[in-house]
Amino acid sequence: MIPRFFVPAADTIGSTIDLPEDEAAHLARVLRLTTGAEVLVFDGRGREWQGIVDRVTKSSAAVRLVTAISAAPEPAVTIALAMAVLKGDKTDEAIRDAVMLGAASVQPLLTDRSEVRASAVTNGRRQDRWQRIAVSSAKQCGRAVVPPIHPAATLDDVLESPGPGLRLALVEPRSATASVLTVREVSRPAHVQVFIGPEGGWSDREMRALGATTRLVTLGSQTLRAEAVPLVALTALRVAWSDL
Amino acid sequence: MIPRFFVPAADTIGSTIDLPEDEAAHLARVLRLTTGAEVLVFDGRGREWQGIVDRVTKSSAAVRLVTAISAAPEPAVTIALAMAVLKGDKTDEAIRDAVMLGAASVQPLLTDRSEVRASAVTNGRRQDRWQRIAVSSAKQCGRAVVPPIHPAATLDDVLESPGPGLRLALVEPRSATASVLTVREVSRPAHVQVFIGPEGGWSDREMRALGATTRLVTLGSQTLRAEAVPLVALTALRVAWSDL
Repeated sequence: MIPRFFVPAADTIGSTIDLPEDEAAHLARVLRLTTGAEVLVFDGRGREWQGIVDRVTKSSAAVRLVTAISAAPEPAVTIALAMAVLKGDKTDEAIRDAVMLGAASVQPLLTDRSEVRASAVTNGRRQDRWQRIAVSSAKQCGRAVVPPIHPAATLDDVLESPGPGLRLALVEPRSATASVLTVREVSRPAHVQVFIGPEGGWSDREMRALGATTRLVTLGSQTLRAEAVPLVALTALRVAWSDL
Repeated sequence: MIPRFFVPAADTIGSTIDLPEDEAAHLARVLRLTTGAEVLVFDGRGREWQGIVDRVTKSSAAVRLVTAISAAPEPAVTIALAMAVLKGDKTDEAIRDAVMLGAASVQPLLTDRSEVRASAVTNGRRQDRWQRIAVSSAKQCGRAVVPPIHPAATLDDVLESPGPGLRLALVEPRSATASVLTVREVSRPAHVQVFIGPEGGWSDREMRALGATTRLVTLGSQTLRAEAVPLVALTALRVAWSDL
C-alpha cells in the first residue's frame, strides 16, 4: 500500500510542497521514506495526487506532486453527526469510525448525562486531539476529505442553530417505534444532521427538545455500545439511501 | 437497568435454578445482589424471564423464574459469519460487536494472511474465551440468544462444507465492482453465510476459491478497520433486507 499524507497546502501539479510537521515526522521517522519514494498526497478537501519524495531530513519533508488522481468518492448525502461526548477515550473511537464511514462533520455534544466535565472538553486540547484522530482515520481509510471536528457545544445550543433539512435523533429501542429503516420514506436528502446520545441516553428534558425538532428513530432492538453507534448509524443511513 | 443473567438450564416458571459459576460470581461479587432482588434470566436460545434472587452465597446463586417475558426479536435472516482471525485482541472486539448486531454464529477462519499461529487458535482456550465474550455481549445488548462460536477452521475446510443458500464474501473496494447494496436484488434469504478476510485481505488463491463459490461484494469505497468489518457488514445486510 502506498503511504498517504495529508497536506492541506497541496494544489498545483509539478510543485514541491513542504509537509506539515506531523506528516513530515510520519514520513521521515515512522515510515523512514527516502528521496524518490512514491507517495499519495491529499488536501483534506477531496483532492488527491501521486507524488515523489523530493527531499527529507529528520524533521522535514517535501513532496513533488506528479499527477492528480481521482479520490475515493464521498457520500452523496452529507451526514453531520452531533454526538454526545463519551467517557474516557470512547469519543476517540467514535470519531475515528465516524470518519471512516463518511461523516461530513462531527459536533461533540455536552448533554445532561455526559459524564465529562465541560471544562475538560472545551479547553481546546481535546478538540485538537479529535481533529488529529480525524486526520489519522482519513489517512488510513483512504478518504481524501478530513471532516471538521467542531468545538464541543451543548445540545441546546446546537438544536437552536439552524440545521439542515432533515434532523434525526437516535433513541433507545423502547423510546420510539420508528426504525431507522423509515428514513427510506423520505426522499434522499442532500444534508442530514444526526443526534447521538451518551451512554446513559437522553434525559427526559432532552427527549422533549429532540422530539419537537427532530425525527426520532431507533437502530434495531438491541442496546448498542455507545461508541459503536456512529458506525452503525452511518452504515444504516447510507445503505437505506443507497449511498454506500 | 435490571441485571440480566445467562442461565442455559432455565426452563419452567416457578422453578428455582442455580446459576452457572461465572454468572453467580457476577451476581454475588460484582453486582452484590441479595435475596429478593429482581433480575432477568435468558437461556441463550431465545427465551427470557423475570426472576427473583432466591438465595446467594459468595460463590453460588439461585433465581426463581417468576414470569416469561417476550425477548428481543432475532433477525429474520440468520447471518452466519465466517471471519478471519485477526491480530492480538481484535477478534475479541469483532466477536463482541458481531453478537451485538445479531450474528447467528461465528466461524473463526485461518486464512493465508492470518498473522496468528494455528496452534494458538485451535487449542480450545481461545475458543472458550470467544464464547465467554459472546455471552457477555448478549447480556449487555439485550439479546436472548448466545450465538455459537465454532472451533477455528481453515477457509478451505469451511468452503468445502455445505453452506446455506446465499454465500457472500467481502472483498477490498478495488477487487470487485458489486456493492453490498446489490444483495437487494436477491429476495431476502433465510440463511446467509458471510466470509470476512484478515487485515491483509484475501490471498490470490483464496480470491479464486471465493469467486467460484460465493458472491463477492464490497462495503463502500473506504478501507475499513478489519475489526469493524463485521459490525458494518451486519448493519448493511440487515438494512438492505429491511431486517433491523
